[in-house]
Amino acid sequence: MLRPGDVIGILGGGQLARMLCLAAAPLGLKTHIFAPDDHSPAFDVCTAFTIGDFDDEAALAGFAAKVDLITFETENLPVAQLENLACRTPLYTPVRALQLTQDRLLEKNFIRDLGIAVPPFHPVGTKEELNQAVKAIGLPAVLKTRRFGYDGKGQVKIFNADGIENAFDDLGRAPAILEAFVAFVREISVIGARGRDGTFRAFDPPENLHRDHILSTSTVPAAISSALAAQAVSTTRQIAEGLDYVGVLAVEFFVTSDEQLLVNEIAPRVHNSGHWTIEACTVSQFEAHLRAIAGWPLGNLSRHSDAVMTNLIGADVDDWEKLLADPGCHLHLYGKREARKGRKMGHVTRLVKPSSKN
Amino acid sequence: MLRPGDVIGILGGGQLARMLCLAAAPLGLKTHIFAPDDHSPAFDVCTAFTIGDFDDEAALAGFAAKVDLITFETENLPVAQLENLACRTPLYTPVRALQLTQDRLLEKNFIRDLGIAVPPFHPVGTKEELNQAVKAIGLPAVLKTRRFGYDGKGQVKIFNADGIENAFDDLGRAPAILEAFVAFVREISVIGARGRDGTFRAFDPPENLHRDHILSTSTVPAAISSALAAQAVSTTRQIAEGLDYVGVLAVEFFVTSDEQLLVNEIAPRVHNSGHWTIEACTVSQFEAHLRAIAGWPLGNLSRHSDAVMTNLIGADVDDWEKLLADPGCHLHLYGKREARKGRKMGHVTRLVKPSSKN
Repeated sequence: MLRPGDVIGILGGGQLARMLCLAAAPLGLKTHIFAPDDHSPAFDVCTAFTIGDFDDEAALAGFAAKVDLITFETENLPVAQLENLACRTPLYTPVRALQLTQDRLLEKNFIRDLGIAVPPFHPVGTKEELNQAVKAIGLPAVLKTRRFGYDGKGQVKIFNADGIENAFDDLGRAPAILEAFVAFVREISVIGARGRDGTFRAFDPPENLHRDHILSTSTVPAAISSALAAQAVSTTRQIAEGLDYVGVLAVEFFVTSDEQLLVNEIAPRVHNSGHWTIEACTVSQFEAHLRAIAGWPLGNLSRHSDAVMTNLIGADVDDWEKLLADPGCHLHLYGKREARKGRKMGHVTRLVKPSSKN
Repeated sequence: MLRPGDVIGILGGGQLARMLCLAAAPLGLKTHIFAPDDHSPAFDVCTAFTIGDFDDEAALAGFAAKVDLITFETENLPVAQLENLACRTPLYTPVRALQLTQDRLLEKNFIRDLGIAVPPFHPVGTKEELNQAVKAIGLPAVLKTRRFGYDGKGQVKIFNADGIENAFDDLGRAPAILEAFVAFVREISVIGARGRDGTFRAFDPPENLHRDHILSTSTVPAAISSALAAQAVSTTRQIAEGLDYVGVLAVEFFVTSDEQLLVNEIAPRVHNSGHWTIEACTVSQFEAHLRAIAGWPLGNLSRHSDAVMTNLIGADVDDWEKLLADPGCHLHLYGKREARKGRKMGHVTRLVKPSSKN
């Protein structure tokens, strides 16, 4: 178990790491960031940082020697290096969870093997396999690379037979899966936390809207029945237990018109759709993650207010003055220097009204 | 006006600076701490820091060259150095406010000259003047050094004629004031913010309980009429305007049994009795201070919940595990290494119930 004054090492220095640092301080925890980019957003608020590449074994060893526990904010990490680090320094979440979620095929197989519904999928290694997959799954369908996809990158939608030919080439012939296109009516996610002792708690599921494949808003409560919300939470718990998980994880779901839940994907970390918890809950997703990996009580994840979180993407952030003047708006800027198109520059959370649950 | 990405320089590295840093990040502001102690609590969360003495002109000049605006979290700063810095770099709050509040006699004269009620007081420079003061004020009374008093330090209560003889010696014969002992029924404070454009807003006044001269709890709302609360806010505004103030200031009041308000003291900075604003308000006192000095809109200081803030003094902090498990408790540890007697190690805030105002 950690104690106040101990140092949490975080691999990755983006906005998730930045908000983990901001949550760590009130718990008396110090933070040490390891990240390759010398303008990482988390460098502004961490106790110490190391600039290094994630495959630089010597740099990672130096970092590990200075921290009491290691966690991460990004999935794009070399598993072999993490396994190395985990031999010397406690490392959560478990490397196996990262390994599974780095590969859409392993991830989907794992979820399906737990008896949990996922959209129909088929592995694709060659053009011939793609043709077989289309026969098995039907069209429209989405071809997704097995590895390194995020925010819609590494995905091509295939509408009809004419599109099959180019789709595989568009993704650089990388190993992929073909996934049935789900005509969902909404997307929700569950942010759950599992402690070292196996205790599991979850935040109320937000409803998520994407724009150009990037999360645009998360709204709690989602417009779903409490039974469906409970089912989503219990599925998330089942996944967390299946992974022997420690820390916060996010599970994204499609909700179909007949109220079926299909798991879209798992993120083995704090998640963009949980940012509203900073203002609307006693313990935020960032604090919950730190409590879980520290071996501390998870705390109270209940929601005291309804909330809408809106991402500030690219030039959205130019509205910062207007947002500062909005009396209902909690502004969160990530300290990034360049507002590139599609880049997450910040978010705002609006507390809507006291929840009817309270 | 500052812009996101700019650097706020903060003189002082204690818990107030630490919480200013935590509030600066979501606004996109970087922080640079200047403090003499190489284990300053704010060093854990600032973007950069300089270790130096407050009278080290060269170190201060180096610090000033790296920041876009300077503010401070402590009153124990040399005015001459601040005036120097203010010539080169925007510095808020105004040095004059600091100068007045560093000297109880100047402070009391200033408040009285605004027509605002303060406890009867009398300057004391010699033993003879102390005898005259006792004749003028009566006993019991409190002898307070004019400078460098805090948390009950630099104060001696005189109960009867026998105590007069030793009181002045106990304070090292430092220049002092004798202040009538006020039989107050409660203490309240107002945390107000004044923008560069003169806009003034205040948080609801908390009621403050002290234990051994150190703030123990702050509770909102205070058990006072709304008329008295409004009067305290309007008095604070008058003081802020009298000082041509920019930033957050705190004014402590005694409330007498016949509902009179007497100003006890002014703090030209964020204040311990305002820590509950982090959880109970849209904009906290720390964010309000940064918005004010940055030249930005002050934002919404209204309270969405009732709250009780309890300081963790000295060994109180050993209860951290129990506090982490308390579902209503927001824990704030300051990262101090040694839990010395009387030392502020952290605080907890409990949101009590939604305010009847909402």
